[in-house]
Amino acid sequence: MTAGVRSAAQRPPGRPPQPGEEARAAALAALAQRLGDRVSVAPAVRSQHANTTTWVANQPPDAVAFPSSPEEVQAIVRICAAHRLPVIPFGVGTSLEGQVNAPFGGVSIDFRDMNRILAVHIEDLDCVVEPGVTRKQLNAYLRDYGVFFPIDPGADATIGGMAATRASGTNAVRYGTLRDNVLALKAVLANGEMITTSRRARKSAAGYDLTRLLVGSEGTLAVITEITLKLHGIPEAIAGGICPFPSVEAACQATIATIQSAIPVARIELLDALQVKAVNAYSRLTLPERPMLFVEFHGSSAGVEEQSARFGEIAAELGGGPFEWATKAEDRTRLWQARHDAYWAALGLRPGAKALASDVCVPISRLGECVTATQADIAAAGLVAPIVGHVGDGNFHLSILVDMADADEIRRTEGLLERLVERALAMDGTCTGEHGVGQGKMKYLEAELGDAALNAMRSIKAALDPQNIMNPGKIVTPA
Amino acid sequence: MTAGVRSAAQRPPGRPPQPGEEARAAALAALAQRLGDRVSVAPAVRSQHANTTTWVANQPPDAVAFPSSPEEVQAIVRICAAHRLPVIPFGVGTSLEGQVNAPFGGVSIDFRDMNRILAVHIEDLDCVVEPGVTRKQLNAYLRDYGVFFPIDPGADATIGGMAATRASGTNAVRYGTLRDNVLALKAVLANGEMITTSRRARKSAAGYDLTRLLVGSEGTLAVITEITLKLHGIPEAIAGGICPFPSVEAACQATIATIQSAIPVARIELLDALQVKAVNAYSRLTLPERPMLFVEFHGSSAGVEEQSARFGEIAAELGGGPFEWATKAEDRTRLWQARHDAYWAALGLRPGAKALASDVCVPISRLGECVTATQADIAAAGLVAPIVGHVGDGNFHLSILVDMADADEIRRTEGLLERLVERALAMDGTCTGEHGVGQGKMKYLEAELGDAALNAMRSIKAALDPQNIMNPGKIVTPA
Repeated sequence: MTAGVRSAAQRPPGRPPQPGEEARAAALAALAQRLGDRVSVAPAVRSQHANTTTWVANQPPDAVAFPSSPEEVQAIVRICAAHRLPVIPFGVGTSLEGQVNAPFGGVSIDFRDMNRILAVHIEDLDCVVEPGVTRKQLNAYLRDYGVFFPIDPGADATIGGMAATRASGTNAVRYGTLRDNVLALKAVLANGEMITTSRRARKSAAGYDLTRLLVGSEGTLAVITEITLKLHGIPEAIAGGICPFPSVEAACQATIATIQSAIPVARIELLDALQVKAVNAYSRLTLPERPMLFVEFHGSSAGVEEQSARFGEIAAELGGGPFEWATKAEDRTRLWQARHDAYWAALGLRPGAKALASDVCVPISRLGECVTATQADIAAAGLVAPIVGHVGDGNFHLSILVDMADADEIRRTEGLLERLVERALAMDGTCTGEHGVGQGKMKYLEAELGDAALNAMRSIKAALDPQNIMNPGKIVTPA
Repeated sequence: MTAGVRSAAQRPPGRPPQPGEEARAAALAALAQRLGDRVSVAPAVRSQHANTTTWVANQPPDAVAFPSSPEEVQAIVRICAAHRLPVIPFGVGTSLEGQVNAPFGGVSIDFRDMNRILAVHIEDLDCVVEPGVTRKQLNAYLRDYGVFFPIDPGADATIGGMAATRASGTNAVRYGTLRDNVLALKAVLANGEMITTSRRARKSAAGYDLTRLLVGSEGTLAVITEITLKLHGIPEAIAGGICPFPSVEAACQATIATIQSAIPVARIELLDALQVKAVNAYSRLTLPERPMLFVEFHGSSAGVEEQSARFGEIAAELGGGPFEWATKAEDRTRLWQARHDAYWAALGLRPGAKALASDVCVPISRLGECVTATQADIAAAGLVAPIVGHVGDGNFHLSILVDMADADEIRRTEGLLERLVERALAMDGTCTGEHGVGQGKMKYLEAELGDAALNAMRSIKAALDPQNIMNPGKIVTPA
């Protein structure tokens, strides 16, 4: 492990399952018998299935299993439960807070071979997929039906991973997050039983909302094996553009006014001046290096034209502009590709540095203040960290470019991240808008929600997973 | 009790709290000491706080408490917990499945005196209210801010009751249900602790979704004491109208086509021919007595005009029309008032009868078939039961007009309701789209969700309410 690896991940709290070596070997033998060569203990495979995206330490599982059916997932969970071995669901490994790590060892369940689109119900605007389907795979499949799945966290994540982490992204201001777009789940509980959380009806008042309880639970309560998703008609017209502002505050005020005016903006993204500079270099653009909103409107041809015009007026009133409307699809695609490449562009600001991504979310009225204070904090800490934000939701991201060989810089980065969360919480915000808790943000939950709510979560965890084998060491430790 | 009272409500299952008379008296004395004359044991008050809306038997609590602060709610729960006495939250008593009944006695907590609007954050489009605020009270208060709260279940229910039962109604197709419009809750757990389920940020990925777990839990997990709601800008223009169709199927197909075309319809309501007849008589209208859609569009002036025109085209393609667009606000109000009075209009079809309301929800592709089969079933059973539906969601309601002195008619009604749920479940639907489970629909949950999911619910209930004092005998009995 390197000097800069966070220590929190190395001292997992709570009462971990501690299977002896004998139990571990017995479990792996039983898995090999069931799955043949679809279980691997190769060191390279194991480390690829632990955290690889951020500075959270890579903690590999004992083995990686590749089930091809829900029954095989049940078999894996039952074998692990019998030997008190942890199970850790794995999509494509794009999570950012150590969600796929195995701090107590155990078996990573990779959904590579469960990537079938099981049904598309076009009249009902829903579809049923296995967890290993990626969002791009799904949208490519859906295109001929004239519908799409709107949640777009940037990475080509799996639907299972997005459901487990309550993913959102650029379209959430219009279409909601993963939470709002799941109709039902099938999932394997710690006891190996398969549950169906809901029927396929568009709404229901029949009992506790197990669907929403599992969405965002990061595999700590159950392993998701099937997801029924809402779909949306592809809008007749899509229009959008970019608009520079004199300040982050002005861009945020324009966002507030846009939403208050009930303009159904589909995407409204902030890039701070440093991020625009990075994007210009990486994507060969010549945007003015000022705070910038990227916006997109979905609707009828007349509708998006009207929405764009009204947004332009609002922007102008707040000193922004000119609002450049990208009428051509290829121009729009190029701009949004540049937005999506923000992470890679940020890396280009400081070659050789590691980009550490973190996110918080605050009430939108406090967003300008929060971003501006964070920029000042970055400067005072002598760090380089461009900012992008899903401003319609009050959610923003830092990509801190860190020289991992510089212990002092790592210390300053840690301090910046602590203060970022403190600042968000002081504004009635949350320590994470969309990255999730994983290992990296466990320490903030008590400050955010209080001991009583955390105890309620611990009770639920203990009730559904009494042996603490479901992705232990993430979110909360059981009661 | 009358002959027609459902027997299910009289044999509450599970392990009820059974405080002795001494414990009961001690609890009531402690409550009286804490609340003075804001606790009542008068028989009339008690029976008003049990089910009064349907044929589920009235099961009054031992006492009714009227807290005026969250601390008083905590005190009530603590006193009841110490003596193992049930607590049953009460809004205005408009629930339909016996949610406010006290099958094991206990204390009804009436939120009459906790009806303050605590904050409106206009830039954030949210507000914070106490549970006793009604939706009409809230919207009257919000009007001057240019925003509104869209969920409209018909009755002027309290926000606390609507959150507890996951209410929805006519606007849900556009604005979602209560579930989608709650940002955070404060609630008292069975141990008397107060939890905050979430910060006020628009989205969060920080831990289990306690907010959604409590929404729809009908007071069986916690007593809600504060609700933070999303608000929406009042649209610049509202337009709507009515459109007759040759059949229920054609009306449903028009609804599907409208939604698939991404026309953002705000309301789309089906009345069957019998319901239209009832409405004509009650509201002195002369609508053609055929299946009818009531529709409403929200947006800019140009937007609603375009949406209306496109809906008219879709309706015509399916043999519907003429689509009469109500341009004047007073005409629109009159039509929607008639829609909202559907229950009273139904009663007029058979003076002296009791109207028994029930709802199911199916995937929209099956809705026409489900409604049509239900109409045939009503006729075969020799019953009178007009149908209205929130067709955009696949949700519809029966108002069965029953002579409660006729045992055979009651038997036939019970059979019809059983078959209604079986039909919905066979179409991948739910036993209740919005009325909730309460006592009346507990028996259907296992068929709908299966034993494993129900066991998960029971485990959660037992974990958060080990004494089973929180509205016991509703939804599920603990493990």
